[in-house]
Amino acid sequence: METVNHPQHTNRQYEEELRDLRETLLKMGGLVERQIADAVQSLVERDSELARRTIARDAEVNRMDIDIDALCLRLLALRQPAASDLRFITTSLKITADMERIGDIAVNISERALELNHEPVLKPYIDIPRMADLAQSMVKDSLDAFVNHDTDLAEKVIERDDEVDQLNYQIFRELLSYMAEEPRTISRATRVLFVSKYLERIADHATNIAEMVVFMVKGKTIKHMDKSSRP
Amino acid sequence: METVNHPQHTNRQYEEELRDLRETLLKMGGLVERQIADAVQSLVERDSELARRTIARDAEVNRMDIDIDALCLRLLALRQPAASDLRFITTSLKITADMERIGDIAVNISERALELNHEPVLKPYIDIPRMADLAQSMVKDSLDAFVNHDTDLAEKVIERDDEVDQLNYQIFRELLSYMAEEPRTISRATRVLFVSKYLERIADHATNIAEMVVFMVKGKTIKHMDKSSRP
Repeated sequence: METVNHPQHTNRQYEEELRDLRETLLKMGGLVERQIADAVQSLVERDSELARRTIARDAEVNRMDIDIDALCLRLLALRQPAASDLRFITTSLKITADMERIGDIAVNISERALELNHEPVLKPYIDIPRMADLAQSMVKDSLDAFVNHDTDLAEKVIERDDEVDQLNYQIFRELLSYMAEEPRTISRATRVLFVSKYLERIADHATNIAEMVVFMVKGKTIKHMDKSSRP
Repeated sequence: METVNHPQHTNRQYEEELRDLRETLLKMGGLVERQIADAVQSLVERDSELARRTIARDAEVNRMDIDIDALCLRLLALRQPAASDLRFITTSLKITADMERIGDIAVNISERALELNHEPVLKPYIDIPRMADLAQSMVKDSLDAFVNHDTDLAEKVIERDDEVDQLNYQIFRELLSYMAEEPRTISRATRVLFVSKYLERIADHATNIAEMVVFMVKGKTIKHMDKSSRP
């Protein structure tokens, strides 16, 4: 697949563009992690101002998504990357979409926080922050695994998804019995239930990213294994 | 960006590969639509056998996702497509990821159907099938818009997302009052609530696809406009 003869300086530019892509992805990852942390903090500490700031900051996430897309398209159009770089770039295109969605979910959590902060406290949040920490670390590790081609780390991310599902199910059961005992908590409990679901989806996105890393490096797909069938 | 001189027959092959990509995407779309329809039918008609078949058929969706990825990579590696084809191929890579997720959501609906079919009927489903029809038609239209570069159709898909959000909110309110009146329905009502959320997410994926079509054709992003902040 060697076609065009690039002059030496173009190759250096190419390397720089690739590094730029990696760094922008990590920067977007950092921003998205912060969005998750702030969204959950706005809920736990009943900080509506923080929730609003988190919602507003989503525009930055979206801008980075567009920038990374443009970077990838540029690399594909002008550099005709060969095998392994090509796969890195096409995977970047997919990963940035996952991160953009994670950003949207952080907005959803902030929206539920705004609603819940208007009402009396349901109960102290204990499992939600634990789940958020887990999901956030999965996002971080999946991206680190990607830029470092580290399949061991990617596989650890995939394993941790079960823990999140477990926590989600535990929260689900707990909230159900809560609602049954105290029907006037139903509206609030349902919103907390949604937050738990949102965090589970963030972990799913991180798992998707980790699966793409394994596919990219090993060329074999471990995607789409059966997920837990719990609600 | 003309670099390599392809012989004439290679250009014809290239056209064929692009057509192949379009057709495979539409085929995957047809399969995914059917998955949505079957999942919801398994719920409405309490047909657990159909739910199980739908879950099993997800493997086909996943295979098509992998096939389309491979097709896109091949086109990028061997054909060095220029501007508009390049964007069509990179958008295909993203769209197939959305469709694969829609397939996963159809599995989730089927799983909730299996659980709900074990319990007494909560109430006749009326809005859920309406929402499913809407979501399904959005998936179909977003893909048609994509392969035909039809931004008018894409914009209609985006508009319809509000209708789905509206229905989802209506179902949410209704189920909340249901649970409050009859606490013993809470477990079932929560599962129906999840199905409603799943359908809303399918519509979101279709909206994402439609937004990518507008971006691909007009080169301007209409992504990430504020979504309804309702639960």
